[in-house]
Amino acid sequence: MPKFSHPDFTAARFANSRDARFEPAPADGVLPEGFFSTTNLPTYVRINGSWKMPQESRMDAALVLDANAELWAREGRRVKRGEKVAVGIAEDGSEGIYVFAEAFLAHDPTALGGGEFRFMASDVSREKPIDYGVMARILIAERERGYPIWVCGPALVHSRARADMTWFIENGFVGALLAGNAVAVHDIEASMYGTTLGMTGSGETTIGGHGLHMRAINRVRAAGSIAQAVQQGVIASGIMHACVTRDVPFVLCGSIRDDGPLPDVYTDIAAAQDAMRGHAVKATMAILIATALHAIATGNMLPAFVTEPDGTLRELATICVDSSEFVVSKLKDRGTHQAFGVVTNAQDFMHILRLYVERELDARGLTRTAAPAAATTGAGR
Amino acid sequence: MPKFSHPDFTAARFANSRDARFEPAPADGVLPEGFFSTTNLPTYVRINGSWKMPQESRMDAALVLDANAELWAREGRRVKRGEKVAVGIAEDGSEGIYVFAEAFLAHDPTALGGGEFRFMASDVSREKPIDYGVMARILIAERERGYPIWVCGPALVHSRARADMTWFIENGFVGALLAGNAVAVHDIEASMYGTTLGMTGSGETTIGGHGLHMRAINRVRAAGSIAQAVQQGVIASGIMHACVTRDVPFVLCGSIRDDGPLPDVYTDIAAAQDAMRGHAVKATMAILIATALHAIATGNMLPAFVTEPDGTLRELATICVDSSEFVVSKLKDRGTHQAFGVVTNAQDFMHILRLYVERELDARGLTRTAAPAAATTGAGR
Amino acid sequence: MPKFSHPDFTAARFANSRDARFEPAPADGVLPEGFFSTTNLPTYVRINGSWKMPQESRMDAALVLDANAELWAREGRRVKRGEKVAVGIAEDGSEGIYVFAEAFLAHDPTALGGGEFRFMASDVSREKPIDYGVMARILIAERERGYPIWVCGPALVHSRARADMTWFIENGFVGALLAGNAVAVHDIEASMYGTTLGMTGSGETTIGGHGLHMRAINRVRAAGSIAQAVQQGVIASGIMHACVTRDVPFVLCGSIRDDGPLPDVYTDIAAAQDAMRGHAVKATMAILIATALHAIATGNMLPAFVTEPDGTLRELATICVDSSEFVVSKLKDRGTHQAFGVVTNAQDFMHILRLYVERELDARGLTRTAAPAAATTGAGR
Amino acid sequence: MPKFSHPDFTAARFANSRDARFEPAPADGVLPEGFFSTTNLPTYVRINGSWKMPQESRMDAALVLDANAELWAREGRRVKRGEKVAVGIAEDGSEGIYVFAEAFLAHDPTALGGGEFRFMASDVSREKPIDYGVMARILIAERERGYPIWVCGPALVHSRARADMTWFIENGFVGALLAGNAVAVHDIEASMYGTTLGMTGSGETTIGGHGLHMRAINRVRAAGSIAQAVQQGVIASGIMHACVTRDVPFVLCGSIRDDGPLPDVYTDIAAAQDAMRGHAVKATMAILIATALHAIATGNMLPAFVTEPDGTLRELATICVDSSEFVVSKLKDRGTHQAFGVVTNAQDFMHILRLYVERELDARGLTRTAAPAAATTGAGR
Repeated sequence: MPKFSHPDFTAARFANSRDARFEPAPADGVLPEGFFSTTNLPTYVRINGSWKMPQESRMDAALVLDANAELWAREGRRVKRGEKVAVGIAEDGSEGIYVFAEAFLAHDPTALGGGEFRFMASDVSREKPIDYGVMARILIAERERGYPIWVCGPALVHSRARADMTWFIENGFVGALLAGNAVAVHDIEASMYGTTLGMTGSGETTIGGHGLHMRAINRVRAAGSIAQAVQQGVIASGIMHACVTRDVPFVLCGSIRDDGPLPDVYTDIAAAQDAMRGHAVKATMAILIATALHAIATGNMLPAFVTEPDGTLRELATICVDSSEFVVSKLKDRGTHQAFGVVTNAQDFMHILRLYVERELDARGLTRTAAPAAATTGAGR
Repeated sequence: MPKFSHPDFTAARFANSRDARFEPAPADGVLPEGFFSTTNLPTYVRINGSWKMPQESRMDAALVLDANAELWAREGRRVKRGEKVAVGIAEDGSEGIYVFAEAFLAHDPTALGGGEFRFMASDVSREKPIDYGVMARILIAERERGYPIWVCGPALVHSRARADMTWFIENGFVGALLAGNAVAVHDIEASMYGTTLGMTGSGETTIGGHGLHMRAINRVRAAGSIAQAVQQGVIASGIMHACVTRDVPFVLCGSIRDDGPLPDVYTDIAAAQDAMRGHAVKATMAILIATALHAIATGNMLPAFVTEPDGTLRELATICVDSSEFVVSKLKDRGTHQAFGVVTNAQDFMHILRLYVERELDARGLTRTAAPAAATTGAGR
Repeated sequence: MPKFSHPDFTAARFANSRDARFEPAPADGVLPEGFFSTTNLPTYVRINGSWKMPQESRMDAALVLDANAELWAREGRRVKRGEKVAVGIAEDGSEGIYVFAEAFLAHDPTALGGGEFRFMASDVSREKPIDYGVMARILIAERERGYPIWVCGPALVHSRARADMTWFIENGFVGALLAGNAVAVHDIEASMYGTTLGMTGSGETTIGGHGLHMRAINRVRAAGSIAQAVQQGVIASGIMHACVTRDVPFVLCGSIRDDGPLPDVYTDIAAAQDAMRGHAVKATMAILIATALHAIATGNMLPAFVTEPDGTLRELATICVDSSEFVVSKLKDRGTHQAFGVVTNAQDFMHILRLYVERELDARGLTRTAAPAAATTGAGR
Repeated sequence: MPKFSHPDFTAARFANSRDARFEPAPADGVLPEGFFSTTNLPTYVRINGSWKMPQESRMDAALVLDANAELWAREGRRVKRGEKVAVGIAEDGSEGIYVFAEAFLAHDPTALGGGEFRFMASDVSREKPIDYGVMARILIAERERGYPIWVCGPALVHSRARADMTWFIENGFVGALLAGNAVAVHDIEASMYGTTLGMTGSGETTIGGHGLHMRAINRVRAAGSIAQAVQQGVIASGIMHACVTRDVPFVLCGSIRDDGPLPDVYTDIAAAQDAMRGHAVKATMAILIATALHAIATGNMLPAFVTEPDGTLRELATICVDSSEFVVSKLKDRGTHQAFGVVTNAQDFMHILRLYVERELDARGLTRTAAPAAATTGAGR
């Protein structure tokens, strides 16, 4: 384990320190306003000119100087009325209390918190707030002047998000859609049969439902392509229908999990990568939803930056949505460090993001398609 | 591993079977409409009166009878124009194809699917749709005539859901709130400082922020109780404020993780259980959000049923929201089998649920408080 | 919500019921031996010939008959010495207590527990024990007479499991290895540089390490194939080395995430599927470790059964190892219902499985390679 | 999004740069040894004295200078024999290639990687190796001279780890055990009935099993305490038995989930915290397994450091084991930044850790109890 010596309190930066100030507790279990709240790091308190560590160090405690001039870290509930409690906020010694953070936080290249004791310092967590307002404003800006690429996994179609994804395509927010065979298969099954993998929009399995995705694939294979199936009326709604009717380019990449596959799927993965890359080099924003495979593949191809018209650089906005922290961390561990993680269910993400975009468009008086019957549930037609 | 004999095809139920029907594939890689789509279970096809298993069984394939009268399970893409493909939907032998599901699915008490091969048969999955419309209608009905209890973990307050939870309290949807010290501490820190554990509503940590929850606790301890802190204006907004001002009962149960704790917290866990139970015996619905500890504790106390005024029984609607399948499964594994799992982020759940409830109230002309400035983010005031 | 009427206690099966028996509690908070332990389901107790439900139903409680002949579900700690407590184990009414399980558990095709109230009824959970002894015995049996296929994700190589996987190959337990480009790339990087993605075997990142996997790929591309790289001494150890030197067939399937790819990788996914299928049709056991993509792809191709030499069928042993319940449930939701889930870290799984296999081999006096220096850590040479 | 200007190449540190060096590709799709492997950060290549960015930036590519003196980031597989490829490792400009890492990685206090592009930079991941050898050596050292506290959740007892935990207690590796009611209840149920929550050691549920933990609790309540139950022979094996017979102190903290509780459980959480703290202030190492509640509670009380006999400080070794990254990250987010995360199944962790400790003890000739029949599975006696 790492070892440390105590700080050198003869150093210049401690020259102007003063003794710590103590105030009496106003009641049993109540601390004076402005009490110093401890951390779990080595802490030094200046008393009569010398620096002293408290007994029984812990975080979230008060510093109590007892009648014998002994100093303790003590929970607030255990402090008695009149006991002397250290007050102060500064942790740099200027108010007579020094927290030796650098020793413990600065030696480690992966340490978080910027050299200061903090809570909630981790990078990706379901406990972090999700700022849909900011995302909505970025997306609207990208619609004007950029090329946002969307990279989606099949969870988007299994659930209610299919209608929302269709809305984003129809309203011009999608520069290109990168996905796999399954996204298109589930979407087309939903268009033809109202199910995905035989599961209805309300989550029930259906008798004989396990064959429906195969029937959907077969009908598109018979039509020759997704575009032809749309033109023949075989596919009448949904994500792929919107891409075809709105001329939004899509790339469907094959994988060994594929049933079929659909006629438009790149079965050669080098060809698929080249097709993806054609969009990645133009991308000014990336939204990666519910797919580790496609998200990491796209992250591999994306620069972390965009060159602005004025020649300066900006970070390429990269949003990664997944139900677990793991996929976002894995994406970052593969080098896409700029990704901002949103840990949530894909269908809920899509619904709220669209709601915020709609509000913002309405507030600015920008046009949009009427909201579809948004309260409808499920994958159905 | 379990072993099985083949089915007895001399049994009465097979007496009226007929030979399977085959149709030619209309093109290379395209199957005839109505093709039989295979499962991974033992499958028997009646040809010239006798039952035959295909070679190379697999799911999602077609059954092809080749020129040598050999039967194969074969992927659609590998079928050639004119090859003979079995057609039919029934798996019970009536159309000449029998899937021996019972052998493999019926011997196991934990087997899902009701004795039939199905996809998406698992009980709890982020891939299942979430029917917010149904939940909104149940909740409105419960407001009229029931006693819905809400059991919440601190993730609800860390993030944007604080405003939504407050809205549900203010609009009469909460019979009682059961939570721990941390929910109230984070909520009160947000009211006083605009942060939770020192993290702002947009997810940034703040300098000195690690002490803010301790300062919030201390001020309430000084006030004497949460209700007194509300009356003194020390707590001016949020969940606890709404409970106090709307007379919604709350139970704050202590745990060993607690800082403080706040004065209202039951530190004796038997007393806390008794207080919880006082609400559990009246409950007609339970909504458990982002807490394994409190959800399981409440589940332990809840009957799985409600006795209706007419003396009949109905299932007690129990919704469990968590970011992972594990917590819901664990709740069920502790006996609360009736729980319906929603695998999502707590803040997104709250926001969409409220949106659906608002829509439904508006559609029925029922009153509600004006929506707060819903687009505001974070935990802030 | 589902509704139910009370059971018909005039039915024949209740004809021989008797009144429930009550015994006094021997001390405050202590129940009589043999007390009836409640569930959360509707429960009926026969008292003086008529069936009565307790007040305040809950699970894990005792049934107490108070001085007013009122019946209560009550926690043991609240029962006073001398109070009358129902005794009995049977829940079918035969001892005067009837639990109406069928109403609540039998109406739902996805309900678990086989119509009885149980804890720990879920199918896949990290809380279930893992029986390595059974797995070891199956694996040894398969080595004798079967064709076990191993399907592995890159987590196996990132961590210490590389040495263990190599051991299984060298000792004849692997019929075929199905994996992706990344497994081979990480393995070969470890052989050449002692790192995986630039991370050392002890988890440290290295300066310039991010390029090492690209250098490894390039050297194999220069050699022409993995086999040639082994023959030229460019690859001197590890998983791929063992496959080449022991003539164990492997299939490396391409995906859009691939760097390179290595020369042996199938870049066409239909060709990759055909190659995988060539092994799947021969498989008598499948071990799927730390890969959703390859596990589901393989599951799609596998029958759920094996035909034994005597013509009978047995379930095809299918073990799926992942850090989360989700991947196993997803595999099952895609139809591979026979999969047995092991929720753990891949490297720990491999290490313990090998340990149990070694013990079993030693106990039977079967040969094996000497254990490599098993205490060595990391991916290194 | 953050914006950046290009680096100032007139700065002193670029004064000694030279032009980048290019070498021809030796074959189609094969790069020259020593090729520069790109990142996704802004990259500048010095050609004829001026710094130029490549077209189509991406990571894991080569830098190719084409016949028109245009520079490209290009995948190795697309490079043709004889094309000019940049060579070099340094990213600081000294070899004519400069990666502008600081702009993108240095502005963010939560950025990982220490200002350099790296893979696998995240702090907690199931993909990181677990160094059991190091942990074993630390634990043996702590047995000699320290006070290691173990903080355990019930997953440890549900599964096979019960025997291993007992072994660690019996062999002197446990200074104190901190846990909740459930750990002791499951352990004692296993001792009395061979089940936990009615589940056998091989994972099967048992008829009537749901009441067994209540019967176990009741028998200990009848005995008066765990110690008395051990003395009376009511508890004959396992974790609590070992604590009692080896005089290892334990603290059982109450929670609202508790059935019973057992007589030794602190039902007042402030008293429980005080009891835990009594051990925390002495702790020189902490091992936190499969419990968020108790791990965070303990982390709150622990200093991040130990004062050595020589007055210097060392980091307090803190190991946190959980099936998901989330619990470890949450612990760190609550301030226990020093925690080292092990993402695995608790039972596997215990088994391998013990194996390594046994090996190390044997290698050093230190005594230990004979290994129990280690191949026995389950919770059973």
